[in-house]
Amino acid sequence: MIPNHWYNIVPDLPAPPPPPLHPATREPVGPDDLAPLFPMELIAQEVSTERFVAIPQEVLDVYRLWRPTPLLRARRLEKSLGTPARIYYKYEGGSPAGSHKPNTAVPQAYYNAREGVRKLTTETGAGQWGSSLAFACAQFGLECEVWMVRASYDQKPYRRSLMQVYGATVHASPSPVTSSGAKILADDPGSTGSLGIAISEAVEVAAAGDDVRYALGSVLNHVLMHQTVIGEEALQQLEEMPDVIIGCTGGGSNFGGLVFPFLREKLAGKINPTIRAVEPDACPSFTRGVYAYDFGDTAGFTPLLKMHTLGHDFVPDPIHAGGLRYHGMSPLLSHMYELGMFEAVSRSQSECFEAGVRFARTEGIVPAPEPTHALAETIAEALRCKETGEAKVILTALCGHGHFDLAAYDRYLSGAMEDFSLPQERIDEALTGLPG
Amino acid sequence: MIPNHWYNIVPDLPAPPPPPLHPATREPVGPDDLAPLFPMELIAQEVSTERFVAIPQEVLDVYRLWRPTPLLRARRLEKSLGTPARIYYKYEGGSPAGSHKPNTAVPQAYYNAREGVRKLTTETGAGQWGSSLAFACAQFGLECEVWMVRASYDQKPYRRSLMQVYGATVHASPSPVTSSGAKILADDPGSTGSLGIAISEAVEVAAAGDDVRYALGSVLNHVLMHQTVIGEEALQQLEEMPDVIIGCTGGGSNFGGLVFPFLREKLAGKINPTIRAVEPDACPSFTRGVYAYDFGDTAGFTPLLKMHTLGHDFVPDPIHAGGLRYHGMSPLLSHMYELGMFEAVSRSQSECFEAGVRFARTEGIVPAPEPTHALAETIAEALRCKETGEAKVILTALCGHGHFDLAAYDRYLSGAMEDFSLPQERIDEALTGLPG
Repeated sequence: MIPNHWYNIVPDLPAPPPPPLHPATREPVGPDDLAPLFPMELIAQEVSTERFVAIPQEVLDVYRLWRPTPLLRARRLEKSLGTPARIYYKYEGGSPAGSHKPNTAVPQAYYNAREGVRKLTTETGAGQWGSSLAFACAQFGLECEVWMVRASYDQKPYRRSLMQVYGATVHASPSPVTSSGAKILADDPGSTGSLGIAISEAVEVAAAGDDVRYALGSVLNHVLMHQTVIGEEALQQLEEMPDVIIGCTGGGSNFGGLVFPFLREKLAGKINPTIRAVEPDACPSFTRGVYAYDFGDTAGFTPLLKMHTLGHDFVPDPIHAGGLRYHGMSPLLSHMYELGMFEAVSRSQSECFEAGVRFARTEGIVPAPEPTHALAETIAEALRCKETGEAKVILTALCGHGHFDLAAYDRYLSGAMEDFSLPQERIDEALTGLPG
Repeated sequence: MIPNHWYNIVPDLPAPPPPPLHPATREPVGPDDLAPLFPMELIAQEVSTERFVAIPQEVLDVYRLWRPTPLLRARRLEKSLGTPARIYYKYEGGSPAGSHKPNTAVPQAYYNAREGVRKLTTETGAGQWGSSLAFACAQFGLECEVWMVRASYDQKPYRRSLMQVYGATVHASPSPVTSSGAKILADDPGSTGSLGIAISEAVEVAAAGDDVRYALGSVLNHVLMHQTVIGEEALQQLEEMPDVIIGCTGGGSNFGGLVFPFLREKLAGKINPTIRAVEPDACPSFTRGVYAYDFGDTAGFTPLLKMHTLGHDFVPDPIHAGGLRYHGMSPLLSHMYELGMFEAVSRSQSECFEAGVRFARTEGIVPAPEPTHALAETIAEALRCKETGEAKVILTALCGHGHFDLAAYDRYLSGAMEDFSLPQERIDEALTGLPG
């Protein structure tokens, strides 16, 4: 059964997360500050103190295309590891965009359409979020305009095509159609772009249009809340409660969506799982970043968010897990990490692809590069169980398939996969750019 | 619920299909002739007169990765067409390989493994069947060796990567590792290969090895029978019985798998749907071929099959629906077509892609090029209903996603999609090569 509600963990926390601040006044931002960018219903959800938010019937009607998603026991992986652990995974790759992103793209498009918005703008890196939003906009008759980082636009034409099949307009970013893009092109006509620049362009166009709004694919509270359909379904589907829950983190939406419903049960004293976030060695915001107010984008257009950050000037090395290349982290998850509600570890690119290939060969699904981080940690945990003899129940989320990422697998199989070391000086340098 | 049996339509037919013949003796081939290529259980299934064959638990355990597959009503497509028709589709694209092919790859690998086979060989064109078999072999610890048509091997490296991620060995065909391949390379070192050549190579290696067998992804009775999980599930899932059932046909496995269970109910007098096969204008074996004994491959290595064929020398134009580019047709479906059990029509490439884009924008799933043929006909049927005011129930199968086919969509969206005319002389010419 598809859950009929999303779960908002905020009112269940021992302390509320620090609010976003206006960069100029340093006062908490209010609904009026956000209204040019988001529809009122999403602004209300962002600050809601209701524990449960009903999922509208129109959203359920689209969720039905791929939900409920399967929760599977990885028996063949367990056997290949020789572990007494029992490994379960929730698979989100059967969605039309091939990942968990449509879980929030669909309600975002729905609420915008209901409030009379004509067009949504967004940025995308490798294209997973852009294609999810393009899909969702098509379902509700909204136009969709996407700024895609130039480097990906040129290297990954098929992800651009996917957005165009859904009817979206896709610009290479920096683009001449915005003043922020034009300014960068004037200085550097060959700019390959960045997520930060693409955000600036999408926000600029949304802010300028009465019936145009902006959509974000992770980081914010309402985005994480929409993703709780993953964890709510898993709670229903599991035959036994997990001892360990493992998820990958970039902006935090896949992880939050998986673990929040289990954390509710943990806070209620019903279960007591260990919960662990896994991030790339190349972009370790939890494990090597600081907890501070910082901008969500590179250009400094967004409100200040209290979060784990490597500094908004930090440019992660070009790992294949594009969805985990974000300098910051969900403020809500950052707050919960400070409260000690979960652990975090990091993993190298090559050990993640090794886990991805092992998973494909045993369980049959080729994972996207992002969830290979969770799989690498899951395998490590299962091997620890083998040593200790503990028959732990491990739950993880396989948040997308790797059918768009076979060039990366090709590199790995041919022995050409890079690992990146991240010297402390690079982090220290980026952190000097934190707003005072 | 996943069905616990496959349905074998042969014993329910008013007359049995003509048997395959040995090319030299013109006598029906027996199990001994097939034993070098297939395991005994599949040979038994090929000639079975049992109506139902139980699906082994080990196969069900793998089916569970993506089955049951969703059966969905295309309400947004209906609305965009303004039709009173009610359109349902069964979606097979959530499988690990992204199509319906694993439905038969998994049992084929299972039965081979159970009979002690060490390695399976096969051919693949664009890679859908090769990656499905590679996936299935990985599940049961079999080696997998694939001959991939050189043109695809070079143009579609990511499908090759997918097979390699699953641990398969992939050769560009013609390859120097077989005598049939070496012979062709000696004559034409730059040969881009063909499905016929690739079959010859895979069959040669299978026939030469005691513990090596060959696997075919369509055409044969047992393959179509494995695919009946599609139709059996749809029968359970449908809220109302269809008036029209529409599927695309290449070798026939997707179509047979969808319609056989409904034909059983029709033969029993319980329902009375119109059933329609859709093939490409560029490869019209039902609508423009002849019903005759012909070889299954180009080189003439296989038994003679009584089927609708364009002649085994026929080389279809390079349409993007690679899975429908086959000169022949399932002998079982060919026999049933002669019995008048279903209709057949053909569609052009550009109208198929137009249907694919319309479907993606309304229903949200980007279809593979093959099922766009069924969608084009479904849309045409729904528009006829709009004219007549009939509220027909239409069922179709969306047998795969198009995430590997975005280059083709890109061509369509940029206005560069080709349509091919097929002059009668080309068919007549190819038919002169039919075995006397």
